Amino acid sequence: MRNEKSLKELEKLGQDTLKMITKKEPPYVELPVRSLSNIFFDEKSKTIKMGDKTSKRYFLNTAHTRKYAQTISIASEIKKIIKEDATISIRDLYYALKHTLKGSKENLLENQSESDPILEDLEATLGLLREELNLTASTKGVIAGSLTVKDGKDIIDLGKMGSGGWGVPSNVEPETIDIKNVDADFVLFIEKDAVWKRFNEDKFWQKHKCIIITGKGQPARAERRLVQRFNKEFNLPVYALMDADPWGFYIYSVIKRGSISLSYSEEKLATPDTKYIGLTVSDVEKYKIPDNVTIKLNDEDTKRIKEMKDYPWFKNKAWQNELDLMKKRNYKLELEALSRKGIRFITEEYLPDKIKNKDFLP
Amino acid sequence: MRNEKSLKELEKLGQDTLKMITKKEPPYVELPVRSLSNIFFDEKSKTIKMGDKTSKRYFLNTAHTRKYAQTISIASEIKKIIKEDATISIRDLYYALKHTLKGSKENLLENQSESDPILEDLEATLGLLREELNLTASTKGVIAGSLTVKDGKDIIDLGKMGSGGWGVPSNVEPETIDIKNVDADFVLFIEKDAVWKRFNEDKFWQKHKCIIITGKGQPARAERRLVQRFNKEFNLPVYALMDADPWGFYIYSVIKRGSISLSYSEEKLATPDTKYIGLTVSDVEKYKIPDNVTIKLNDEDTKRIKEMKDYPWFKNKAWQNELDLMKKRNYKLELEALSRKGIRFITEEYLPDKIKNKDFLP
Repeated sequence: MRNEKSLKELEKLGQDTLKMITKKEPPYVELPVRSLSNIFFDEKSKTIKMGDKTSKRYFLNTAHTRKYAQTISIASEIKKIIKEDATISIRDLYYALKHTLKGSKENLLENQSESDPILEDLEATLGLLREELNLTASTKGVIAGSLTVKDGKDIIDLGKMGSGGWGVPSNVEPETIDIKNVDADFVLFIEKDAVWKRFNEDKFWQKHKCIIITGKGQPARAERRLVQRFNKEFNLPVYALMDADPWGFYIYSVIKRGSISLSYSEEKLATPDTKYIGLTVSDVEKYKIPDNVTIKLNDEDTKRIKEMKDYPWFKNKAWQNELDLMKKRNYKLELEALSRKGIRFITEEYLPDKIKNKDFLP
Repeated sequence: MRNEKSLKELEKLGQDTLKMITKKEPPYVELPVRSLSNIFFDEKSKTIKMGDKTSKRYFLNTAHTRKYAQTISIASEIKKIIKEDATISIRDLYYALKHTLKGSKENLLENQSESDPILEDLEATLGLLREELNLTASTKGVIAGSLTVKDGKDIIDLGKMGSGGWGVPSNVEPETIDIKNVDADFVLFIEKDAVWKRFNEDKFWQKHKCIIITGKGQPARAERRLVQRFNKEFNLPVYALMDADPWGFYIYSVIKRGSISLSYSEEKLATPDTKYIGLTVSDVEKYKIPDNVTIKLNDEDTKRIKEMKDYPWFKNKAWQNELDLMKKRNYKLELEALSRKGIRFITEEYLPDKIKNKDFLP
């Protein structure tokens, strides 16, 4: 299905440029400022967001010329790709455009670190995700649950994916992935692949009517976007199951509020409704977890805890207590540590108990 | 399905130990030597293999006691897991066993770097893959093609996986994954996820009757095992599509011959029939690829080329020429570089041409 909306936006960029040239005005593109000064936490959308400061990139300003040429060339190549109904990686995009400009010894691009930020500029200025521009990001996540998705001509039953799960594709926009027959009461966003496998093997999603998804560590854009769709389109609550360590908390924070580096897209990626179901340091007493499966904090951990205490969305009693407790106890612990209580403790006791008691962190 | 074969092997280990104790002999386990001195390239199986040197680990030798206790405890825990019909990660295994020995201050395990090698000892001595011991490794690969797999109660059509593909599960042993209705002439083992996505989007597997699989970089055990099964059980040739760089060549080498670190399992993982379909440095002329998409070799590359020239399986004219040419030209190139020739050049011209002309490296 061709992305007409994106095509229209790209054509508008081209038309605007042409107008300036025919009017003999110096051509430019107007771009949102993507530096920290223009990034803030938006109380309305409850996500990290980019502000409305913009700057102009001029063709005739020699300090801008190279980037200007790259911007127009990349926009033009993307238009071509959409017209070909193809989806390519950002590395392909770089190589497709890497050439020496006619009559010069100048390469349009020297390496991918030049094309990547230009693409981000375009996403920000057009208000489109890269997926909507037929560009794929790498994906690693898998998903299972009682629902079907229509992807191209294929109708895929995510309740019949065996032990492997369905590999989350890069583009999960509604134009590409049609979600149907959702028979679930919530989404469980699991940090770790090994833990996801435990939940899948124990058919937790069947017994507890939910969708289980993992990004295998820090999730890719696609997993986050898909979870946002479940939340927005199907009103499903989202529960995050992470390690009780600063990294796990940070991943949760990205799922819920977004990240600075993707601030220009977070309205489409973050899921502010997400709740933290576990693991926490307070669980150690609550579930009588033996001390010797905990891990001592290192300097980096202590530093991260301090930073996180200042995040606006951790500025509430529950999280401040949890972060203080972690620092006081001077330990963290991994989800797999629950295996000490029995292999299926996590799926048969811990999680059902947490859900029953609504024992969440905000 | 309970793994009776593995249970029997583990019970035998227990019985043998019990016999020694009741006979008042000092109990020991006999283990294959896993050091380099006992690893060789086996001309018969054409894979890297472990030799038949063994050593004994004694309970009553104080230098062995700790490892002996770990060996027996891990074997016993694995037996329990198999009896529970559960599959767990090696990290779970570590946590499940991490405890302080009664009446002492000694922990059975201090960290996972203690339990992992013991597990490898057990795999080697029992002649079983860890997957056969209900232990999962992390997986990242995806697969698509005209075939179905039966995984538990689910029958999964790998020709209807949309843009995501089926996530290759950790355990792909015949007891778990039943492969059916294979309508393919060959297997294409693709190094990179982005390239796999190109082949999947262009439905290459449908047009060219093949199975496409990627391990997203260095493949996990499961992807290699699955490809070996396609080769052995269905007589499908395997073609590897890698970057033209020392890392791509090395991954090919592991797929075909195995690795030193997994030498004790390579008979079940390596696929000696694999052929190298591309990318090569010679392709630059053959397919008129512009020079400016190549990448200069670094010192590590040059060192690796020198090492690889001495691998027994690269000791043939074709590979020696290719390695010499890479060194002489002083460049490498990535699969995505073919995008310079057009986004679908790789699926519509390059690969079909290579297959038609049987233009492989051995």
